[in-house]
Amino acid sequence: MRKSLKEIAEIIDGELIGDSGIVITGVSGIKEAREGDITFIANPKYKNLIDSTQASAIIISAEEQIKADIPLIQTENPSLAFVKVLEIFSREKVNRVAIGIHASAVIGKNVQLSKDLTIQAYAVIEDNVRMGDRVVIYPGVYIGKGVQIGNDTVIYPQVSIRQEVIIGNRVIIHNGTVIGSDGFGYETLNGIHHKIPQLGTVVIEDDVEIGASVTIDRARFDKTLIGRGAKIDNLVQIAHNVVIGPNSIIIAQTGISGSVTVGKNVILAGQVGVAGHISIGDNTIAAAQSGISKDLPPDSRVMGSPARPFGLTKRIQAVIKRLPELFKKILDLDKKIENLEKKIGKTKDYR
Amino acid sequence: MRKSLKEIAEIIDGELIGDSGIVITGVSGIKEAREGDITFIANPKYKNLIDSTQASAIIISAEEQIKADIPLIQTENPSLAFVKVLEIFSREKVNRVAIGIHASAVIGKNVQLSKDLTIQAYAVIEDNVRMGDRVVIYPGVYIGKGVQIGNDTVIYPQVSIRQEVIIGNRVIIHNGTVIGSDGFGYETLNGIHHKIPQLGTVVIEDDVEIGASVTIDRARFDKTLIGRGAKIDNLVQIAHNVVIGPNSIIIAQTGISGSVTVGKNVILAGQVGVAGHISIGDNTIAAAQSGISKDLPPDSRVMGSPARPFGLTKRIQAVIKRLPELFKKILDLDKKIENLEKKIGKTKDYR
Amino acid sequence: MRKSLKEIAEIIDGELIGDSGIVITGVSGIKEAREGDITFIANPKYKNLIDSTQASAIIISAEEQIKADIPLIQTENPSLAFVKVLEIFSREKVNRVAIGIHASAVIGKNVQLSKDLTIQAYAVIEDNVRMGDRVVIYPGVYIGKGVQIGNDTVIYPQVSIRQEVIIGNRVIIHNGTVIGSDGFGYETLNGIHHKIPQLGTVVIEDDVEIGASVTIDRARFDKTLIGRGAKIDNLVQIAHNVVIGPNSIIIAQTGISGSVTVGKNVILAGQVGVAGHISIGDNTIAAAQSGISKDLPPDSRVMGSPARPFGLTKRIQAVIKRLPELFKKILDLDKKIENLEKKIGKTKDYR
Repeated sequence: MRKSLKEIAEIIDGELIGDSGIVITGVSGIKEAREGDITFIANPKYKNLIDSTQASAIIISAEEQIKADIPLIQTENPSLAFVKVLEIFSREKVNRVAIGIHASAVIGKNVQLSKDLTIQAYAVIEDNVRMGDRVVIYPGVYIGKGVQIGNDTVIYPQVSIRQEVIIGNRVIIHNGTVIGSDGFGYETLNGIHHKIPQLGTVVIEDDVEIGASVTIDRARFDKTLIGRGAKIDNLVQIAHNVVIGPNSIIIAQTGISGSVTVGKNVILAGQVGVAGHISIGDNTIAAAQSGISKDLPPDSRVMGSPARPFGLTKRIQAVIKRLPELFKKILDLDKKIENLEKKIGKTKDYR
Repeated sequence: MRKSLKEIAEIIDGELIGDSGIVITGVSGIKEAREGDITFIANPKYKNLIDSTQASAIIISAEEQIKADIPLIQTENPSLAFVKVLEIFSREKVNRVAIGIHASAVIGKNVQLSKDLTIQAYAVIEDNVRMGDRVVIYPGVYIGKGVQIGNDTVIYPQVSIRQEVIIGNRVIIHNGTVIGSDGFGYETLNGIHHKIPQLGTVVIEDDVEIGASVTIDRARFDKTLIGRGAKIDNLVQIAHNVVIGPNSIIIAQTGISGSVTVGKNVILAGQVGVAGHISIGDNTIAAAQSGISKDLPPDSRVMGSPARPFGLTKRIQAVIKRLPELFKKILDLDKKIENLEKKIGKTKDYR
Repeated sequence: MRKSLKEIAEIIDGELIGDSGIVITGVSGIKEAREGDITFIANPKYKNLIDSTQASAIIISAEEQIKADIPLIQTENPSLAFVKVLEIFSREKVNRVAIGIHASAVIGKNVQLSKDLTIQAYAVIEDNVRMGDRVVIYPGVYIGKGVQIGNDTVIYPQVSIRQEVIIGNRVIIHNGTVIGSDGFGYETLNGIHHKIPQLGTVVIEDDVEIGASVTIDRARFDKTLIGRGAKIDNLVQIAHNVVIGPNSIIIAQTGISGSVTVGKNVILAGQVGVAGHISIGDNTIAAAQSGISKDLPPDSRVMGSPARPFGLTKRIQAVIKRLPELFKKILDLDKKIENLEKKIGKTKDYR
C-alpha cells in the first residue's frame, strides 16, 4: 500500500506543511518509525522526539506552532486522524481474505447466506443460521443452530458459537473463543450435583470486540448480554446471565460471576474477579487483581482484594508496608507503658 | 415441546391443585417466567412472589399451606422435581443432534464405534479409540490414539483430547477444552530447561462436567484424576498428577498446581490458586481468589491470599480497613507516652 | 520399547553395577516405579527409598557409596542422565505420528514444504507459509499467511497461528493456543473505543515450549518476542509488544500486560499479574499470585499483591495474622495511657 502525503492530508482533513508528493508506505509509533512511515504526536510532551524520528511525516495538532525539517500534517485531533490512517493501511491486510465459500465448508439447512460472504475451509455452519453481509468466517469455526450474525462481523479461526447466539454488526471475535457454552449451574441434593439445563442464550451487540480464548456462557433463562461497543480482552470469563454495559472494557483474565450487571464505560483491569449477583455502576474503574464482592455505585475507583477505594487502599498499603516496624513499635510502647506503670506505682508509694 | 400439567404432575410424583389441562411450554425462574412456563419455589422466603409471577404453574413443597390463583404442584422436594422438569424440556434441544457419523469425520484404524453414536463434521478420531454407546462428538473435535470414552458422553466442538486419556460415562466436555496436554516439567541444568516427558495420562470419571477452555495436563507418570461427579467451570487449569475428589466443584479460572490432592465435596471458588504438592481435605470451601499454599484439614473454610480461616480473615480485614486510622493512633500513643515520660521524669526530680 | 541396562548405561555414559542383561521397558519416579522401570535419585535424601522401590534399576550419583540389591547405574549427573533416558523412551510416542501430508489438509499458494513434514487432517496452511524440516502439524491447526516455522517444531491440534508469525526450531505448542491475535489497543474519543490496528507480529525463538490455551498477542508495531528456551505454561496471557527473555519460565494463568520486558531466567509463578510498560530484571522470581506494577531489578524475589520482597512480605504476613490481637492491644494501650494520664494528673496536683 502506498499513499501520497497529499492523499493522506485529504483523508484526515488536515493541513499539509511540506512536500505533498512524498509517498507513505506504512504507519508507526514515533520511536519505532522508519523511512516511509507516517506517525503522530497527540501529547505535546513527545514533541522533543520530532528531531530524532526516522518517520517521513508526522500528524500533529493544529494548535502547535512548530518548525520542523520533516513534513507535518496539522489537524484538530491527531489521535483520531492517526486511527483513520491506521485503518486505511490495515484494511489491505484484512481484505486479503478472499470472498466466497470454501468447498469444504459444511453449511446446514435453511442457512441465510448474504452477499459478499466469506466462509473458509472446514467451517461448520449448522441449520437455520442467518449471516449478514460481508461476514468473514475463518477456518475451523463452528456456528451452532439458529445463530444470527450481523453485517461486517469477523470471526477468526476455531471460534465456537453455540446454538441461538445473536451477534451484532461489526463484531470481531478472536481465535479460540467460546460463546454460548452452558452456564455453571447445579441443584445439589444429597451431595450429588444435578445439572440445571441452561436454556437461555448470549447476545453480543454491535461493535463489540472479543479477544482470544474468551468464554461467555449462555444464560440459564433469558440472555447473557455484551453491550454495544464493549471490548473484551483475552482469556476473560463471563458467566451466565451477566450484563456488560455499552463501551465497557474488560481486560485479560478477568472473571465475572453469574448474574452480575456491569454498567457502561466501566473498566475492569486484568485478573479482576467479580462475585455473583452484584452490580457495578457506570464509569467505574477497578484496578488489576481487584476482588469485587459488593455493589459499586457509579464512578467508583477501587483496587485490592477485597476491593476498596483507590485512596483508602493506597493509605492502607502504605501502612502495611510498615507493619513489621509498627509491630515493634507497639511492643515498645507496651514496654514503656509497663515501665511507666511501675514508676507511677513507685510515685504512688511516695504519696 | 408441550406437556400438560397433569403429565408433569405424574412425572414428578406431585399433587396437582388446579386445572390439569393447562399446557406448559417452558420452564423458568419465578421472576423471569412468562405465560406457559412452569416454575418452582424451594425456599419459603420466595412465597411472596407467587402473586406477581407470570408463570402458568408453580412446583412447591407439600408442606406449604397455600391458597393461590395459580395452579400448584405440591411435592416433597420441589428442587429435585424442578430439575426433572428442566431435564425434560432441555432434552429436546440436546436430542436435535442427528445420530450418525458425518462423511468428513476421519476415523483411524481399530476404532471401536458403539451403537447410536454421533460423530460430526471434521472430527478426527485416531487409531485404537474406544467409544461407548450414544456418545456425541461435535464438529472439529480431536480424539487422540487409544482414548477411551464411556456411554452417553457429550464432547462439544473443538475439544482436544490427547492420547490414552480415559473418560467415563455421562461426561460433558464444553468447547475448546484440552485434556491430556503435557504436564509442565523440566529438569534445569546450567540454566537450560530440559523437558521431562510426560508419560502418564488423565482419567475423567463418570458424571463429570468440564467447562469451556479448561486445560487438564497429563501426569508425568501414572494419572491426573478427576473424580466422579466433579464439576469444573471454564478456564480452569489442572496440572499434572492432580487428583480432584468426587463431587468437588472447581469454579472458573482456578489454577491447581502439580500433584495436589483435592478431597471430595470441596468447593474452590473462582480464581483460587493452589500451590503444588499439597492436600485439601474433604468438604473444604475456599472463597474466590484464595491462595492456598499449605495442607488444609477436612471441613476447612478459607479465604484470602495467603488463605486463612473465614473468621480470622474477616477480623483481619476489619482491622486492615482501619489501618490508616490505627497508624495515627499509634503515633498519637507514642507522643502521649513521650509526654508522660517527660512528666514522670519531672516527678522523679521531685523525689 | 525395550532397552537392556547395558545399552542404557552406554547412552548415559554411566557405570553399571549389577546384571547388564536386565531389560528396561519404562521410566518412572522412584515411588511410582514398577518392575521393568528405570528410575533415578538426584537428591541423597531419597536414598532411603532404594530398598522399597519396585523399579528394576536406579540411576544414581557416582559419588554415592551404596550397596543395593537392585542394579545401579552411577553417573556424574543423575538428573541429566534421567532426562536422556526419558527422552529415549518418549521418542517412540512422538514418532508414532506418520510423516506425510493428509489429503484433507488445505495448503495455500507458494507454501514451502520441507522434508519429512507431517501435516494432519483438516489443518489449514495459508499462502506463503514456510515450514522447516520434520515439522509436525496436528489436526485442525490453522497457520496464517506468511508464517515461518523452523525445523523440528511440533504444533498440537487446534492451535491457531495468525499471519506472519515467526516460529523457531524445536518449538512445541500445545493444543488450543493462539499466537498472533490482535493486541488490545483502542484510541477512545468521546467514549467510543476506536480499534488501533495491530500491524506487528510475534516471534517465538528456538526451543520454546508453550502450553495449552495460551494467548500471545501480536505487537501494535514491531514484535512480541518469546526468547530462546523460554517455557510457558497453560492459560497464560501475553499482551502486545511484550518481550520474554531467554530461559524464563511463566507458570499457568499468569498475565503479562502490554510492552512489559521480562529478563532472562525469570520465574513468574502461577496467576502472577504484571502491569504494562514495566521491566522485570534477569533471574527474578515472583511467587504465585504476585501483582507486579513497578520495575524490578535483577535477582528480585517478590511475592504478594502489590509485590514486595520475600522477606518483607513474610514479616508483613506474620503481623497481619496477628492484627486482630494487635488491634485489641492498641485499644488496651490507649486505655492504660489514659489511666496513666489520670494518675499523673493526680500526682501533678501534689506538686
